Amino acid sequence: MNQPFLYLYLVILCSIVYCTDGCNLSQDVIKDIQSYQPIVNNIIDLVTKGNLKGKLYKDLALFVDKFGSRLTGTKNLENSIDYLLELMKSYEIDNVHGENVVVTRWRRLEEYGELLEPRRDTLPVMALGSSIGTSNDGLEAEAIVVRSFDELNQKNISEAAIGRIVVFNEEWTNYDDVYAYRSQGATEASKKGQQTYRDNVTKIPAATISKENAQMLQRIQDRGETIKIRLNIKTETLENGTSRNTVGELVGREDPEHVVAITAHTDSWDAGVGAMDDGGGAFMSIYSLIILRHLGLQPRRTLRTILFTGEEQCYCGVNDYDAVHREELKKFIFVMESDEGLWNPLGLNYTAGEKGGCILKEILQLLKPLNATRADYVENVGSDISLWTKSRIPGASLMNENGRWFWFQHTDADTMDVMDSDQMDRAVAVWTSVAYVIADMELEFPNEFQ
Amino acid sequence: MNQPFLYLYLVILCSIVYCTDGCNLSQDVIKDIQSYQPIVNNIIDLVTKGNLKGKLYKDLALFVDKFGSRLTGTKNLENSIDYLLELMKSYEIDNVHGENVVVTRWRRLEEYGELLEPRRDTLPVMALGSSIGTSNDGLEAEAIVVRSFDELNQKNISEAAIGRIVVFNEEWTNYDDVYAYRSQGATEASKKGQQTYRDNVTKIPAATISKENAQMLQRIQDRGETIKIRLNIKTETLENGTSRNTVGELVGREDPEHVVAITAHTDSWDAGVGAMDDGGGAFMSIYSLIILRHLGLQPRRTLRTILFTGEEQCYCGVNDYDAVHREELKKFIFVMESDEGLWNPLGLNYTAGEKGGCILKEILQLLKPLNATRADYVENVGSDISLWTKSRIPGASLMNENGRWFWFQHTDADTMDVMDSDQMDRAVAVWTSVAYVIADMELEFPNEFQ
Repeated sequence: MNQPFLYLYLVILCSIVYCTDGCNLSQDVIKDIQSYQPIVNNIIDLVTKGNLKGKLYKDLALFVDKFGSRLTGTKNLENSIDYLLELMKSYEIDNVHGENVVVTRWRRLEEYGELLEPRRDTLPVMALGSSIGTSNDGLEAEAIVVRSFDELNQKNISEAAIGRIVVFNEEWTNYDDVYAYRSQGATEASKKGQQTYRDNVTKIPAATISKENAQMLQRIQDRGETIKIRLNIKTETLENGTSRNTVGELVGREDPEHVVAITAHTDSWDAGVGAMDDGGGAFMSIYSLIILRHLGLQPRRTLRTILFTGEEQCYCGVNDYDAVHREELKKFIFVMESDEGLWNPLGLNYTAGEKGGCILKEILQLLKPLNATRADYVENVGSDISLWTKSRIPGASLMNENGRWFWFQHTDADTMDVMDSDQMDRAVAVWTSVAYVIADMELEFPNEFQ
Repeated sequence: MNQPFLYLYLVILCSIVYCTDGCNLSQDVIKDIQSYQPIVNNIIDLVTKGNLKGKLYKDLALFVDKFGSRLTGTKNLENSIDYLLELMKSYEIDNVHGENVVVTRWRRLEEYGELLEPRRDTLPVMALGSSIGTSNDGLEAEAIVVRSFDELNQKNISEAAIGRIVVFNEEWTNYDDVYAYRSQGATEASKKGQQTYRDNVTKIPAATISKENAQMLQRIQDRGETIKIRLNIKTETLENGTSRNTVGELVGREDPEHVVAITAHTDSWDAGVGAMDDGGGAFMSIYSLIILRHLGLQPRRTLRTILFTGEEQCYCGVNDYDAVHREELKKFIFVMESDEGLWNPLGLNYTAGEKGGCILKEILQLLKPLNATRADYVENVGSDISLWTKSRIPGASLMNENGRWFWFQHTDADTMDVMDSDQMDRAVAVWTSVAYVIADMELEFPNEFQ
């Protein structure tokens, strides 16, 4: 192809693929967004080369080394919340305070698993969050291994499952599909045990075993051998307790009533130290305000960091916030949540209408220096904030190279070792930049739900 | 560069780099080796495409699922040895038998670690093999973290270490360097504790903690905080017991007195199931004979599989074999050991003289179909067999893509999950081919030690 034709071809390609991506923002809006490039560059420089380089990692390490895991309902979580409040105050963040939240208090006491047949061996187990325990003496039963709910629902398998321990050996596909076995496995298995009685489904204990052992049990069953397992799981649900959502702001200089919320959660499970889930998210959300304060940037609208409590056990924090701030939430123009890792940032996953999506795409062009310009629409972004992004407030989460998230999540491996200081710096630069531009740009981010 | 010059350039390059690699094998030897290409191709086809494809993985899985870990001195190890003897007999391997070996019987009874300061948390520990225990009540002491022996040997650190728990937080470089901390850490630390008394070094307990926790303790120390740890380790050394080396042969059809040995070890530590270390090596060494039997190939000299016992605890198996077979060993022309993984094969690491090296390089050209043609000289190849390759018998181990070996070795992660069926098939094809050609080729492999 000679050069003039090549050029023409690219122009046509552009007009089909790019220039008609459905966006039709006014030149004023585009120019306004583009005018933030110097500020975004300053943010990037400050955290990737300047005084704050490496600070996010170092300060998160100090935090998790000091407090370890932060199970909802523990004094330890409350101490860590006190620490975060003091931290924000020390940087002169506005309106730093905690907001009381009633939380459930489930905890594990003892977990023991043993393979009895075809040979005796330890079988490490971990009770799934909110699981009931076995009887005091534990239980011994034959086990049946299934690869899927579909397999469990086959008539002969359903019948064989009665009175047995059901082992799910599901294949890894993606988080959402596999999560179903964690959240619904006990219910689906319980249905089988009770189908002859036509009762409602009652609670049965649920625990994880390692993937390696699930595969081993599968092989043993496939050889026609009998599997017998002993389990002794003790858990406890105490009376409800009180925890706090952790809040701080940069009050808007012109329009303080409209809020862009930057959220994460303070609590963790008791495995590991919750460095990734969600200590990193909490620190990134706090440091977004600290970075802007450091640069002397007070946005047009209010930027509010809200660190919810009780996300892992009950979404208690966000539900309480929703009830208490129902009216005020109508003035929330955008909600951001970081609860999916702080690895190399790629851009945002967002839920917003057509125009909102176009604005986000334009904003993310500012992140070209970090090659983090993607803006992918998803149905219902976030974990805590999905309560709002489902139908009320547009929002986003950080899209990052988090392919290893599920390797570590809710396990003893969730430590500082899985975090990367340079990648965290790039992530917080994206997070801070997006939050600031949305809170500061002339146009109010459109809420197309309303 | 125009083409004639390019050609000339390549010819010159070849004559410098390749054609003068120091090898000067006679055309007869080269032709003899090359004549094995059809046989090597048959071996490769049989295990990577034919009837035996996937068999090595499947049979190893059956074995480790059946027996689990195989600690030296346990009945379980002996049962697994019975099984391997029966397995070889079922394939009509020659002279299948066990040879009694006296073995030490160390075992762990209880391991408990707890961080007491600056905060209370569990600190999972695993006693290092052959470690003594703490006193019955355990011990509590402040800890000092060092990154290296050099750091420990600094005067102020040496003094500070007295009466303390020494935590080595060494950086990963390579297996040999890091292994020194596992094997010598307790001794080096003990020296500090006793230097004021000028005693001989006495035994102190030694245990591993996770890399994540070592790094956390380092950070805590670097912040100037005090670390206090509680340890309770109980181990036991019983009276010596009896185990067996596991032996089978294809008796040489012309020169049965000269032996090529294919070795591995049957025992494992009690963490994981020893699928990688060294179940895989043991099965590869057995299946090399089975594959040749399957193809009806009886080599000129004897091919002997020896699965040593007690490698992990005491090298008891190889030492006993060395003592009992001292005379016969003079007729061992080559020893092979697989104890470093069965991942994608690259060729061999070998210890041999100049001519031996040239022969191996030529033999490995036969493995071009698997792209496993490397032959790298190393000083002293092998673990068990290093006793012989140091100064008496040339030998080799499988060079394979085992960069993740240390991720799993001697941990609960050493399960079938780290093995790969296709890669195991390629590995056993290389192993079988090399063993057969050395045992069968006209020229007796030269022993350049003598």
